[in-house]
Amino acid sequence: MSAKIPVTVLGATGVVGQRFVRRLAHHPFFVVQHLVASERSEGKRYRDACAWRLDGEPYGGLGDHVLGPGSEEGSFSPVVFSALDTGPAKEMEPAFAKAGALVFSNASAFRMAETVPLLVPEVNGEHLGLVEAQRRHHGWKGAIVTNPNCTATVLVMALAPLHATFGIEAVMMTSMQAVSGAGYPGVPSLDILGNVIPFIRNEEEKVEEETPKLLGRFAQDHIEMAPMVVTALCHRVPVLEGHTEAVSVRLKGNPSPEEVAKTLREWRAEPQALGLPTAPRIPVHVHDLPDRPQVRKDVEGDGGMSVHVGRIRPCPLLGIKFTLLGHNTERGAAGASILNAELAHAKGLA
Amino acid sequence: MSAKIPVTVLGATGVVGQRFVRRLAHHPFFVVQHLVASERSEGKRYRDACAWRLDGEPYGGLGDHVLGPGSEEGSFSPVVFSALDTGPAKEMEPAFAKAGALVFSNASAFRMAETVPLLVPEVNGEHLGLVEAQRRHHGWKGAIVTNPNCTATVLVMALAPLHATFGIEAVMMTSMQAVSGAGYPGVPSLDILGNVIPFIRNEEEKVEEETPKLLGRFAQDHIEMAPMVVTALCHRVPVLEGHTEAVSVRLKGNPSPEEVAKTLREWRAEPQALGLPTAPRIPVHVHDLPDRPQVRKDVEGDGGMSVHVGRIRPCPLLGIKFTLLGHNTERGAAGASILNAELAHAKGLA
Amino acid sequence: MSAKIPVTVLGATGVVGQRFVRRLAHHPFFVVQHLVASERSEGKRYRDACAWRLDGEPYGGLGDHVLGPGSEEGSFSPVVFSALDTGPAKEMEPAFAKAGALVFSNASAFRMAETVPLLVPEVNGEHLGLVEAQRRHHGWKGAIVTNPNCTATVLVMALAPLHATFGIEAVMMTSMQAVSGAGYPGVPSLDILGNVIPFIRNEEEKVEEETPKLLGRFAQDHIEMAPMVVTALCHRVPVLEGHTEAVSVRLKGNPSPEEVAKTLREWRAEPQALGLPTAPRIPVHVHDLPDRPQVRKDVEGDGGMSVHVGRIRPCPLLGIKFTLLGHNTERGAAGASILNAELAHAKGLA
Amino acid sequence: MSAKIPVTVLGATGVVGQRFVRRLAHHPFFVVQHLVASERSEGKRYRDACAWRLDGEPYGGLGDHVLGPGSEEGSFSPVVFSALDTGPAKEMEPAFAKAGALVFSNASAFRMAETVPLLVPEVNGEHLGLVEAQRRHHGWKGAIVTNPNCTATVLVMALAPLHATFGIEAVMMTSMQAVSGAGYPGVPSLDILGNVIPFIRNEEEKVEEETPKLLGRFAQDHIEMAPMVVTALCHRVPVLEGHTEAVSVRLKGNPSPEEVAKTLREWRAEPQALGLPTAPRIPVHVHDLPDRPQVRKDVEGDGGMSVHVGRIRPCPLLGIKFTLLGHNTERGAAGASILNAELAHAKGLA
Repeated sequence: MSAKIPVTVLGATGVVGQRFVRRLAHHPFFVVQHLVASERSEGKRYRDACAWRLDGEPYGGLGDHVLGPGSEEGSFSPVVFSALDTGPAKEMEPAFAKAGALVFSNASAFRMAETVPLLVPEVNGEHLGLVEAQRRHHGWKGAIVTNPNCTATVLVMALAPLHATFGIEAVMMTSMQAVSGAGYPGVPSLDILGNVIPFIRNEEEKVEEETPKLLGRFAQDHIEMAPMVVTALCHRVPVLEGHTEAVSVRLKGNPSPEEVAKTLREWRAEPQALGLPTAPRIPVHVHDLPDRPQVRKDVEGDGGMSVHVGRIRPCPLLGIKFTLLGHNTERGAAGASILNAELAHAKGLA
Repeated sequence: MSAKIPVTVLGATGVVGQRFVRRLAHHPFFVVQHLVASERSEGKRYRDACAWRLDGEPYGGLGDHVLGPGSEEGSFSPVVFSALDTGPAKEMEPAFAKAGALVFSNASAFRMAETVPLLVPEVNGEHLGLVEAQRRHHGWKGAIVTNPNCTATVLVMALAPLHATFGIEAVMMTSMQAVSGAGYPGVPSLDILGNVIPFIRNEEEKVEEETPKLLGRFAQDHIEMAPMVVTALCHRVPVLEGHTEAVSVRLKGNPSPEEVAKTLREWRAEPQALGLPTAPRIPVHVHDLPDRPQVRKDVEGDGGMSVHVGRIRPCPLLGIKFTLLGHNTERGAAGASILNAELAHAKGLA
Repeated sequence: MSAKIPVTVLGATGVVGQRFVRRLAHHPFFVVQHLVASERSEGKRYRDACAWRLDGEPYGGLGDHVLGPGSEEGSFSPVVFSALDTGPAKEMEPAFAKAGALVFSNASAFRMAETVPLLVPEVNGEHLGLVEAQRRHHGWKGAIVTNPNCTATVLVMALAPLHATFGIEAVMMTSMQAVSGAGYPGVPSLDILGNVIPFIRNEEEKVEEETPKLLGRFAQDHIEMAPMVVTALCHRVPVLEGHTEAVSVRLKGNPSPEEVAKTLREWRAEPQALGLPTAPRIPVHVHDLPDRPQVRKDVEGDGGMSVHVGRIRPCPLLGIKFTLLGHNTERGAAGASILNAELAHAKGLA
Repeated sequence: MSAKIPVTVLGATGVVGQRFVRRLAHHPFFVVQHLVASERSEGKRYRDACAWRLDGEPYGGLGDHVLGPGSEEGSFSPVVFSALDTGPAKEMEPAFAKAGALVFSNASAFRMAETVPLLVPEVNGEHLGLVEAQRRHHGWKGAIVTNPNCTATVLVMALAPLHATFGIEAVMMTSMQAVSGAGYPGVPSLDILGNVIPFIRNEEEKVEEETPKLLGRFAQDHIEMAPMVVTALCHRVPVLEGHTEAVSVRLKGNPSPEEVAKTLREWRAEPQALGLPTAPRIPVHVHDLPDRPQVRKDVEGDGGMSVHVGRIRPCPLLGIKFTLLGHNTERGAAGASILNAELAHAKGLA
């Protein structure tokens, strides 16, 4: 086995950053070289700079790692994982890309940029081809590769096989989202205990614009958006981890619930074929019990990297409706970026 | 003021029954004559037969009332409120109607029967006209008048003014429902803490079939169903009281969100004109704050008898989408039956 | 009726400040003259400076009130209510007192100061006598009167009649406290959903030191601490409003649970005798049901101003144990300060 | 390695029964021979008789196992695990013991019987010696061995090393208990959402009487109760798994918090020395962070078999107070019985 690739984690002390660290601590392809947080954390040990919020081994075993500076010179690695907020992401991610790093970003800053792949490996691996156009366009040696908003990621995991098999004309998605999606400290308990909040800033817009790009066609220097109508209604509910999505779709040819179930159940994609370490063996679990999937009972399976579908039934308006469930901070954030890097690695990019 | 009308409450010890009792304890038109629960409760005092679960005055002040028999002879009153389950409702409600009582029922047993009004006073008061056909058809002196499923009730409170003003072609409704909708003991805490359950037995079917009847046209001996497509996706969430509904509608003429807001805000109906005691002054509250209505903060206003709408915005698929909120055990159950009786009384029926 | 006394609310936009405003909006003795929040809010209307978080009439009907400056010159009233944090309280409360105002403070800054009354009107009204010593000592025309920590307030409401009747030697109190006690945004939902947090900074210390002062004897220029051992164990639980306290006490003469219940049930104090507007008619409700009081079901009664006791039973170690419950942001904060001002007013001080 | 010992699980379809099955499905000493539930389940497959509520492999992989009869003839194995309710336990456990089985019971029926071991292997392994007296007294070939109430089990895990090292004179324990302790369906969500219930039937009595037996001295044909005062105050809180206990103790010699921490941290007992498969490597984890242990974050470690202690600090009344945490359905139920059986096996009894 060849030597592991050194990586940098930007935003390493936040909740997504911690999930990066936990997943990278014992990764077969990658090894942590630099952990970066805010300026005032530089020079501190990770255990002193970080309030560890996950279960399992504290600090991913990297508690004594000293935090590096926030500059591409001081903290360069050939592969970078970014758990930055939008503002810092806009500055730091291009700087690292320019310096030659392949940046796998969970931030929303560049998701809709024309030459930036918005990647879900099971869904649109060929979008990695945009990297060439991106390098050419910016004159960079490195590149930025993004993963989508958590709600959109979970959604396209179920839509991709349906779009490939039948063709999707319209999607209506109503979400019931976990509080962890807002980071830490995030949603105040006074707001959410015993409550439903029918508003998450910019969330509906992200789902509605990212989905057609995710399901779009790679056209060398841009993505042709998939021609479908997407409407999203997003809610926060008192759940810790995992987004539940009530989905209705209009599919070409009007397939039966049984055909839809079969398509989802049998779907395997490139990460499964390649056996990527973070890829779930089965990307979509189709449940038969009438009251499943349920977020608290189902979402942690497969390290949170598979999604769950149940209650596939006829919709008198659009044709098919079903329940969808996925892990917002793993499949929808930390696990997503790392799977992206694994795919890039398998394709010789990283 | 004329003498109050004596009433019987069937199923008086359950959670809806208790809400009936609390509302009837000091009602301007009605006075409790008989409280009826199960056979083994007959002869007991209400305080001994009933585990009182509401706040306010325990037992509605009727703790010493002795429970009557479950027969129409032993517990007859000219007006009857039924909080029975479907099974007992199927037997007892016709028996009381035959004996001459006007039965206002929260049960689902006869909601879709051809000559039974499925009544929401703000929405379809003229459906009370079915009582005549019902009496003729069965040869009864009394009659059965039902209120709809709680989720459907809340829904039609917002749909009725839109249907009257614009005409509705299609509705998609995704609900996030309170645990109180399942009665007591109802949903086990082990199932719902930190969870979303994407299934409530028969709930979607009820919403889909009751809505077109509720918005239908009175045609002497039956209701002509409103010609619209309704699709419902129902979920249980860890909320105590109040159903949140994410609603999308296709309206004729494609009105703007502002026109929809104006229509809802200005809507007043017969119960408001008549000043019925249980009717809210404003049936639909339209909220301007981007994150309202919220169930825990808004649902208890007006004794739970108004509904709340917010986030009225364009839907790329159906035209308009919004958040809707209402009280499932008041507007959707106990308060509903009592408002029905008040309307019947105002119209000279009760 | 004489003219109402003008009052200033410091910290008017926070959650306790909002409760002050709601209670003062229609108060028989007081009328709001100045609302004060942070510097950057000066000159704004209350509705624009404040995210209103309570139910009932928004902004207490004072939405158009323009916020005043934070100085005693610009915002002076003869009576001041302070919902400030400790830091600002340390500066502003003495400034207003020096300028002649009677400051009723919910802050902890001066609670243990020798000449500052730590007042619960039912418990130690005579401690108001300290005001004279305070004025003499500081050369102030006004004075500062504080109410205790919310957990201590609830505790002494049950301890006071027991101390007066039997004499208390030792108290052990284990609390299960609502999230509202931490203000807004306060406790992150990620921390408390489905969890118990066994630590609230400085809370145990406050209960242990404030209780003996509260139950102490007025000695002209100081309070003689009540000679009792108090130990507190404080926890945060996923409850919105209301602190539950498991209390064990060693009483002189070893009274029976029945004697303790009778003492608590029959207790009436000065605010009840004076009929102060915010005082509950019955200060301690003694529950007979074996599983009451319960915070969600009982705490909102009497505007949150009474406390609840149940399960009075023998303790093999200390003699008596019971469950105690009270409203942390009303009896323990906003309602407390206002009741203090009412007592001062009734005694001719305000 | 010798052949595995066949075992019977009584009450196999309940929540504790399911945890037995999950733990026994791949156990190094034991193999499931009979699963027994109610009479009407006899002859059904486990997957058809049981609503599986745990995560991990459904039915522990035993979904096709056919349920046996409830008689000691029909379902005999040399080792029996009982997850029965008290009523059935009183009949079936003696029948199996008489027939020669060693019955490891989670039921409360025989816990306080004079010759029945109330066993926690780390705490009182020598109590297994009672088996001989029990056999002699009843003329049985088999025997009944019980594990304590879940709350008491967690408590004695922390008390045992303190009692051995210093000697305990008095204990006050206030619990905040998970809903899973009430089984399924158990606590209604309407009762516990946003609430604290200050009453769990018989729970305080069990803790107060079982603790002195657990810490007592084996005296051949009975246990000499440990001479200490125990008082318990038990509460239900909206937590899924894990009991939090606020504990105060009076220890002989008045040791410091540091000495107590050291004693707990260094404690290892017989199951650790024997390396029993279900025993945690470290029985008591002592936490240093001021706000830990927290039930949702800490309780699932070590398969739920260790307990957690934090905030060891002086108590002005009893000397020492601390926070204690343990898993009620593993350390306090299923895992407890199985560890008991492992100890009995290691000592040549099973």
